[in-house]
Amino acid sequence: MTNSPDAAQLLDVTSQPKGDGALAEDLAAVDNLLADFLSAKERAAGCAEVALFSGWLKQFLLGGKRFRPMLCCAGWRIAGGQGAIPTSVAAVAASLELFHTFALIHDDVMDQSATRRGRPTMHELITTSFPTHRDPLRFGMNTAILLGDLAFGWSYDLLSAGYLNPTQFRAVWPQLAAMRTETMAGQYLDLLSTGKPNGDVQTALRIASYKTAKYTVERPLQVGSLLFSADPALLTFCSNYGAALGEAFQLRDELLGVFGDPKHTGKSVLDDIRDGKPTVLMAIAYQRAGIRQRRVLGDFVGNPYLNECGAASVRAILRGTGAYDAVEQLILSRHQQALDAIDAAPIHPTGAVLLRQLAATAIQRQQ
Amino acid sequence: MTNSPDAAQLLDVTSQPKGDGALAEDLAAVDNLLADFLSAKERAAGCAEVALFSGWLKQFLLGGKRFRPMLCCAGWRIAGGQGAIPTSVAAVAASLELFHTFALIHDDVMDQSATRRGRPTMHELITTSFPTHRDPLRFGMNTAILLGDLAFGWSYDLLSAGYLNPTQFRAVWPQLAAMRTETMAGQYLDLLSTGKPNGDVQTALRIASYKTAKYTVERPLQVGSLLFSADPALLTFCSNYGAALGEAFQLRDELLGVFGDPKHTGKSVLDDIRDGKPTVLMAIAYQRAGIRQRRVLGDFVGNPYLNECGAASVRAILRGTGAYDAVEQLILSRHQQALDAIDAAPIHPTGAVLLRQLAATAIQRQQ
Repeated sequence: MTNSPDAAQLLDVTSQPKGDGALAEDLAAVDNLLADFLSAKERAAGCAEVALFSGWLKQFLLGGKRFRPMLCCAGWRIAGGQGAIPTSVAAVAASLELFHTFALIHDDVMDQSATRRGRPTMHELITTSFPTHRDPLRFGMNTAILLGDLAFGWSYDLLSAGYLNPTQFRAVWPQLAAMRTETMAGQYLDLLSTGKPNGDVQTALRIASYKTAKYTVERPLQVGSLLFSADPALLTFCSNYGAALGEAFQLRDELLGVFGDPKHTGKSVLDDIRDGKPTVLMAIAYQRAGIRQRRVLGDFVGNPYLNECGAASVRAILRGTGAYDAVEQLILSRHQQALDAIDAAPIHPTGAVLLRQLAATAIQRQQ
Repeated sequence: MTNSPDAAQLLDVTSQPKGDGALAEDLAAVDNLLADFLSAKERAAGCAEVALFSGWLKQFLLGGKRFRPMLCCAGWRIAGGQGAIPTSVAAVAASLELFHTFALIHDDVMDQSATRRGRPTMHELITTSFPTHRDPLRFGMNTAILLGDLAFGWSYDLLSAGYLNPTQFRAVWPQLAAMRTETMAGQYLDLLSTGKPNGDVQTALRIASYKTAKYTVERPLQVGSLLFSADPALLTFCSNYGAALGEAFQLRDELLGVFGDPKHTGKSVLDDIRDGKPTVLMAIAYQRAGIRQRRVLGDFVGNPYLNECGAASVRAILRGTGAYDAVEQLILSRHQQALDAIDAAPIHPTGAVLLRQLAATAIQRQQ
């Protein structure tokens, strides 16, 4: 439980895009900084529990895609940054990963999910680690809430740990503050709309934008760019590319959440249907479904007792109505928008190569 | 639900100590800044949901004791600050109140408490406001977790909103970072030890120190002082006074949690016994209890079905063993330690008067 992998281990190189030495080095630098930061927190603490917390967080960090740190580093490169990334970029990228850690831990508590990254979720891990507690389930949930809080707080501390100079700090903070509030608004809309299926594609797109797209692509890219220069044309590009690719990323997530292979995604392929997640995929299917199909969706979607057999019926409708293909088409068109934005933008060629590569990773991934 | 009281309304003057114009003015300034900050967050947001969040937080903020802001302002005055408090002090005090708001909202979720400040807790309020949601209880719990996250994040944003200059920022941040981690370690220990009663007074005192004392008294006083000067003797005094008074504050809380009048405390007088909170009060009682008394404590403490009749039996044991009186004695002795620390400290006379007054408020309060 207090297993604390060292810096090198934090980075799961197998999950990173191939063929780009600079990106792998960037991410190694981010993970080194993150490991150093967590160790410093352990040393600075006046109580032993902090080493336990830090150990749990390090374990959770293993095997993440590091998509947000990648975008942050890419942001610095499209603005003109060359050579090894400076500490400021590594620190902001690491802070984004800690924020993401917080978001996932709390998301798993809220969704009562059992697996993440092929391992037990944080609340599951803690629940099973304390079998003699009076109420292990409640203790696991509550301690996971607390661990999420801690990761969230430390994502701020990382920004104030001296890695950024005051100008850089003032440049990125408002973007990051907006990102956090947007993510929470998206999560709220998600909670509000979770339940029975409906045909509201616009709401599903709005949730995707706030809950995932902005904090996954647009904002990380923007803050990375801002650490090199504050060119308004570049920021506009970040928004255009980010909105398109972020939506494609989330739509891929929706497909993986229902049709993915748990061996690759590392999470259940039933949870999204069981919860009745307000996805674009489901909204399109519901719009197109006939009376009998709607009845089946109504029975199974948002049904906590759904089994694999019911899920198969839902998948058949998602395919039969053409919703699956429609979402694939949306992903392709958003991908194309992102590529078009790159071609039209005043960005550094090295950065352009990187962004095309990241766009491909985001839409072709299996996890 | 979207009721947004204006700045003046945020301050519940009836709950403030009487007879000190400066303190009332300080707190009015803190509440004005807090209301302005929340309004600015609403205006800056790109989505309507943020106004809803802000409205919920403003409602929750009504009627709080503002004990931490008071200590922060007092910290500035004991260091020599005179006249109206500067914006930097008001901002840090407001940030402390937002952090406290976060801590209470998540604490109520973890403890599944129904009332706070005489009103429904945040998750109760949201649950009852959305009766047509598929799962109102889970939606209420999850949205309250989210609202707590938001208050936590905004407590950081307040520090970076331009109210502090870089020197002030660097001076207070490490103290606040330590405070947040300490509070979470304390909350973890609380969750870990909650359950059946035992006689472990030392653990109960350690929890009280981390979970409440440091973030209620010592750290607020320290950061307030640091905004005027960084005199090491003053910081030592803050720790001595803070440790003593913080413990007295928490011990008073323990007594109010079991023997208080819900009309004044605004919360249930059964919850702490039902949960089996690891309090000093209970640990002393358990140590002193005979076999039959321990059996009664074992039956009722940590029993979610406890009723008022069972609670009366527990209270009789808390009194009969002398635990109640022992805790009152501890409160008096810690109060005296705090007063002795004032007498021996190099602090400004105006501040000394204020700290004596706050010490009296902390230990004599009924809420």
